[in-house]
Amino acid sequence: MLIQNQHYRTIWLSPENEEVVCIIDQRLLPHKFVVEELRTVSQLITAIKDMHVRGAGLIGATAGYGMYLACREAKENHGSEDYIYAAAKELISSRPTAINLEWAVKRQLKLIQTKQTIDDKIIIAKRTAIEIADEDAEYCRQIGLHGVSLIEKISKVKQGAVVNVLTHCNAGWLAFVDFGSALAPIYKAHNEGIKVHVWVDETRPRNQGASLTAWELLNHGVPHTIIADNTGGHLMQHGMVDMVITGADRVTAAGDVANKIGTYLKALAAKDNNIPFYVALPSSTFDWNIYDGLTEIEIETRSADEVKYISGICNDEFITVLVAPKNSSAINYGFDITPARLITGLITERGICGANQESIAALHKNISH
Amino acid sequence: MLIQNQHYRTIWLSPENEEVVCIIDQRLLPHKFVVEELRTVSQLITAIKDMHVRGAGLIGATAGYGMYLACREAKENHGSEDYIYAAAKELISSRPTAINLEWAVKRQLKLIQTKQTIDDKIIIAKRTAIEIADEDAEYCRQIGLHGVSLIEKISKVKQGAVVNVLTHCNAGWLAFVDFGSALAPIYKAHNEGIKVHVWVDETRPRNQGASLTAWELLNHGVPHTIIADNTGGHLMQHGMVDMVITGADRVTAAGDVANKIGTYLKALAAKDNNIPFYVALPSSTFDWNIYDGLTEIEIETRSADEVKYISGICNDEFITVLVAPKNSSAINYGFDITPARLITGLITERGICGANQESIAALHKNISH
Repeated sequence: MLIQNQHYRTIWLSPENEEVVCIIDQRLLPHKFVVEELRTVSQLITAIKDMHVRGAGLIGATAGYGMYLACREAKENHGSEDYIYAAAKELISSRPTAINLEWAVKRQLKLIQTKQTIDDKIIIAKRTAIEIADEDAEYCRQIGLHGVSLIEKISKVKQGAVVNVLTHCNAGWLAFVDFGSALAPIYKAHNEGIKVHVWVDETRPRNQGASLTAWELLNHGVPHTIIADNTGGHLMQHGMVDMVITGADRVTAAGDVANKIGTYLKALAAKDNNIPFYVALPSSTFDWNIYDGLTEIEIETRSADEVKYISGICNDEFITVLVAPKNSSAINYGFDITPARLITGLITERGICGANQESIAALHKNISH
Repeated sequence: MLIQNQHYRTIWLSPENEEVVCIIDQRLLPHKFVVEELRTVSQLITAIKDMHVRGAGLIGATAGYGMYLACREAKENHGSEDYIYAAAKELISSRPTAINLEWAVKRQLKLIQTKQTIDDKIIIAKRTAIEIADEDAEYCRQIGLHGVSLIEKISKVKQGAVVNVLTHCNAGWLAFVDFGSALAPIYKAHNEGIKVHVWVDETRPRNQGASLTAWELLNHGVPHTIIADNTGGHLMQHGMVDMVITGADRVTAAGDVANKIGTYLKALAAKDNNIPFYVALPSSTFDWNIYDGLTEIEIETRSADEVKYISGICNDEFITVLVAPKNSSAINYGFDITPARLITGLITERGICGANQESIAALHKNISH
């Protein structure tokens, strides 16, 4: 997508030195746009853990490049296969909830194993990392193509009046390699001249909505309004939301969705007010081995300080302020589960399906998993 | 309630000078405890508008003292009745959603009108202001007495294991004159040795939960954990919440509740997980003239900057940081409506009743309104 009219992806190999992985340090957005260079697996894992990069698709793509860096480092360690496996393990455990991470690492491992020499392993890992990133971008583009039909339909019913879409967290291009999942249909609609306006949940405690989604939409010129996470129910009660689209970090074969904490609350409100609630995701987000989100998906617990302290900018300086009593405890769950029964449909690169086992399986007949 | 073992109310007349109304400047909590002296109606209205004081009961009590200051100022303006009416009007419009404000001002006006001389008006206004504050404290104490039975019952079912109560915003003693509404049963339970733990919604955008409720509970020694507003649904899905108690800013005669924005989302989650959802309120919070919360209660819109900027403390200094793109717009609704159908019961100073017209009316048979 565009930043001041220049096209960017969220991750790429440096054209000057293909041993260097470049990312946008998303912790500094929306205030500062800084490209960070990752040269080691360890730096890359820190970037995932500390959320320089985040978002289901981008975590997957980053892990893909991580395996490439791991092969390079293995070469320096006498071509050790153990080194590659250890890196794979560490990568997988760097964030537990998003499936794309595990998926990307396993895809890499499978191919790396087919090669005998470390140089061949490096070549295939590099090619696969690029493929994973390219696929991610292409799948998101296709999610946009399918999803825009839903917005178009509402726009027609409203006779061209503004379509109000509510989204939670950031499932825009910053969460993937390009285009995004939840935001892809919105960008597509906006580009086609359909009047669309986005309610942006700020998404506490890390404020990905207020900082990343708003920044993306602002850069692309899409009308939007930031709201506290508490606000969506009120808007829905008053007819101010036409549809909800969120992303997903892991989706069961039966359609339960793990996504940013708070998604479940918005799905309940959408149901209570008869508002369509869609989840947009590349099919790699499905976890084909599980059916019950509530019992089978591990929910990441992050530092309580993310709740008690908030960072922002004051006089052009990054400052972190304490917003609670120092001695009060806090807890910080990263995700929650939205049961399939609350979801109107899933928007994937293959098309739109219901959030149930039959409908999901029918759309993915010819996928191997 | 206690602050470092000294008993405080949230509002009182200065013992040194009874023309001065003292309040705790709640904007500085939990970081600094500062008593502010209000000497004019205009200062007092600013204190309400800019939320030095907030919370349904305390706004009412402050307005009561405001009418006393108004009578004093009227004396300096040749005893003008017009001055008193103008102050009353301005007080009522200083915050639109909480009914207690209007209720307190009207109660004062009714009595002030019965007196002929300005000196008599001052005397009755002072007496009434103190009465309103005393009543508020006493009613909250009684809410605690009634509400504790609900916690006791759950504690018995759990065989003495910790009872987990979720609350939203601040409906503690800081929101009233003493004791609080939602927190009164919790304090009572804690004092009686019932094991209780409170999930404290941080309550964006003004963070009354993280700053005020947590501070109150910490000072009183009640175990508690601060959570992002997004978290309650997840906790409820996993059996980590035994009941919800919130406060209310206005309740219709049919039981619809206007309370801090986001309350509706928690009520939906409680319903979805079969968790009892109670609202605690003094009966003065009922608006006997209306029945439909969604169409008949005005929802206050506050400054968008309260969403885009967050204040906190850094190196012992108050600092306000920007957490969103400067050029993105935001909107800030202060309250939402929780429909009566989602509410298990209402805890009042008169006892507990269902959230429906018949049950509410039965409990308030002998009240004039």
